[in-house]
Amino acid sequence: MTSSIIQEKLSQAIDLLREHNLDCWLTFVRETSQTRDPALDNLLGFGLTWDSAIILTKQGEKIAIVGQYESDNVKKLNAYDRVIGYNFGIAELLRAELKRINPQKIGLNYSLSDTAADGLTFGMYARLVQMLAGTPYPLQFTTAEDVVRKLRERKSAAELARVREILVITEQAYGAILSAPLIGKNETEIHAMAGEMAQELGVDFGWERLTNPIVNAGEHSSFGHGIPNPDLKVEPGMILHLDMGLKKNEYCSDLQRCAYVLRDGETEPPEAVTRAWLACWRAMEAGKAAIKPGVQGWVVDQAARDELTKHGYPEFMHALGHHVGRNVHDGGSVLGPRWEKYGERPIKPIEQGAIYTIELDVIVEGYGMIGLEEMLVVTADGCEYLSTPQREIALIRH
Amino acid sequence: MTSSIIQEKLSQAIDLLREHNLDCWLTFVRETSQTRDPALDNLLGFGLTWDSAIILTKQGEKIAIVGQYESDNVKKLNAYDRVIGYNFGIAELLRAELKRINPQKIGLNYSLSDTAADGLTFGMYARLVQMLAGTPYPLQFTTAEDVVRKLRERKSAAELARVREILVITEQAYGAILSAPLIGKNETEIHAMAGEMAQELGVDFGWERLTNPIVNAGEHSSFGHGIPNPDLKVEPGMILHLDMGLKKNEYCSDLQRCAYVLRDGETEPPEAVTRAWLACWRAMEAGKAAIKPGVQGWVVDQAARDELTKHGYPEFMHALGHHVGRNVHDGGSVLGPRWEKYGERPIKPIEQGAIYTIELDVIVEGYGMIGLEEMLVVTADGCEYLSTPQREIALIRH
Repeated sequence: MTSSIIQEKLSQAIDLLREHNLDCWLTFVRETSQTRDPALDNLLGFGLTWDSAIILTKQGEKIAIVGQYESDNVKKLNAYDRVIGYNFGIAELLRAELKRINPQKIGLNYSLSDTAADGLTFGMYARLVQMLAGTPYPLQFTTAEDVVRKLRERKSAAELARVREILVITEQAYGAILSAPLIGKNETEIHAMAGEMAQELGVDFGWERLTNPIVNAGEHSSFGHGIPNPDLKVEPGMILHLDMGLKKNEYCSDLQRCAYVLRDGETEPPEAVTRAWLACWRAMEAGKAAIKPGVQGWVVDQAARDELTKHGYPEFMHALGHHVGRNVHDGGSVLGPRWEKYGERPIKPIEQGAIYTIELDVIVEGYGMIGLEEMLVVTADGCEYLSTPQREIALIRH
Repeated sequence: MTSSIIQEKLSQAIDLLREHNLDCWLTFVRETSQTRDPALDNLLGFGLTWDSAIILTKQGEKIAIVGQYESDNVKKLNAYDRVIGYNFGIAELLRAELKRINPQKIGLNYSLSDTAADGLTFGMYARLVQMLAGTPYPLQFTTAEDVVRKLRERKSAAELARVREILVITEQAYGAILSAPLIGKNETEIHAMAGEMAQELGVDFGWERLTNPIVNAGEHSSFGHGIPNPDLKVEPGMILHLDMGLKKNEYCSDLQRCAYVLRDGETEPPEAVTRAWLACWRAMEAGKAAIKPGVQGWVVDQAARDELTKHGYPEFMHALGHHVGRNVHDGGSVLGPRWEKYGERPIKPIEQGAIYTIELDVIVEGYGMIGLEEMLVVTADGCEYLSTPQREIALIRH
């Protein structure tokens, strides 16, 4: 819990309510240890148990109605004007607050395509309608998705500093893993090594441990989000691919790294591997060159995709990039194709201050998967890498 | 990920579809690293990224439609009859499966009061309606809450064994903490000790670390779900109260422990502390005695509440008990009062095999909070403790 970042985000949120002419933004949650509204990341930074309402208004009011047992925690943030604790039920308190605020438009956390702006459950929506029966408020509900999205995307200096910090640590962890003796180790063992490394470095994993890191040893591995396989060992003539995200002080990293295991007598990777690496690198750079505020994400994705296919490789079946922040898949827009699964996310314009991954991959028959993934921040007129890009495939020698 | 438990729970789920005459149960999720439907606990045991549908039918079919990058993981569970991977979008595949199954009643994960059965977001509900426009299916939606609830509540032998295991470890951790030199340590330091302990024991925390364990040193602490306070030190004449939940192999514990810090010359706690302890113990035992399958939870809560108030103490402002399993607050019914915040949960009948906490507390003026919390399993005609109950307040000496 860091009060200063929460205070900063709340003030940013109120600016966004004004920008989008939303009278009031209502985050309505319960038992977040089970189903957690991602919007809480920027509103509190910790969980809540009983029905709880976080209300921000265009006038700048910040109100929290929470269970009595959690009201101290919210008060200690020094971020809310009013913290109302209760024992029996929230309905009457919520009605009273809304009546006092008298909003014409109430933003709720639902979205057809933005996963980070869709934290209101269907049951909680139904409860709101039930609790507010006989009031005009249910007819004033609208989506708060623009506010939620921009609040996540426009990272502050403090947020950027935290991402930079975990990136340095992640690169350190990768350095240690890739310089350890890996030949003969299986995917599960390398996955375990990363666990020890994270513990030593005092950091957490940025997504669930089962697939973090993803470890791909050679061409028979399960690519994508596969669980490490104890039957696949690192052997000469194979590409070893890793995809890992770490977390410190609530902020995440997400980087991929690749190595080729030299065979006896080899001093460099085979031409097929080098050629694929170079095509990936150029495609990534082509995507990066297209990034600047205001551009729609699909345009950036297309630039990278075109460059890769121009080199004769099949296109990757995912978005070129996603936001990273408190969550490793931080929601909001994507640098991705306009495919059904991404909904409206690829057409949202890029925001200055956003932190994206940029990532793509090629499977090299007989060797395994090459995957590149770096992180960058969007500047006033372009973007710059936050990670130290892996410019060449690493080499593993006997 | 443990295939055997998942296989067991899936087969139990199909029995429940028959019990509740539900043709088909549809769990519809995406980006579970952000908003996670708790139903996935029993369906997969790991997360999913793109729009994904897990469909079980009364006929016994088990179908998963997931992103291509995650289909290997689902296949490896050996639990699904059909695993369909996709790249672009799920809509057509989902329509085709529903058409083939031709259900009259489709259960979805929404609930007004059961937090574990309310994992469908409002946006995902809207997407379903949109994707299935022109089909009869949206009119056949109903809640799957009874299936979800009983699936969590009726713990199998394998699940029970895992809970027993983490309880043994939790008691070990408590033993070590309470026998360490604690006088002069502040709440935050004791919280940190527990972190080191968990790391040594190779277990995770069962709810968010920030408030796990809850540490209450004396009467000025923040009771309930408070964040540990570095300004409050353990001192003679004070009650130290801890509330901790650990996790191993995906299953949780949740226990409270209490100690009194003897002052110079004292050999036992003051009468006010002993009397309150005894009242809590008797109230807990009165609740326990009321537990058996078929009884409504509020009846159990009332028995404990009445016993406590009979001794002249104010009633606690929470439920006497909640389920514990993959989640520390495992949803479903509660052993709790019929207060607004608990909705329908207190009137659901107790299920055999359920694992509950049983917990209550009294604030002793001048000393701090006494809180008791044990865990138990419901048997055919009653219940038995799974934890080793703390029968007397522990004593901390100089």
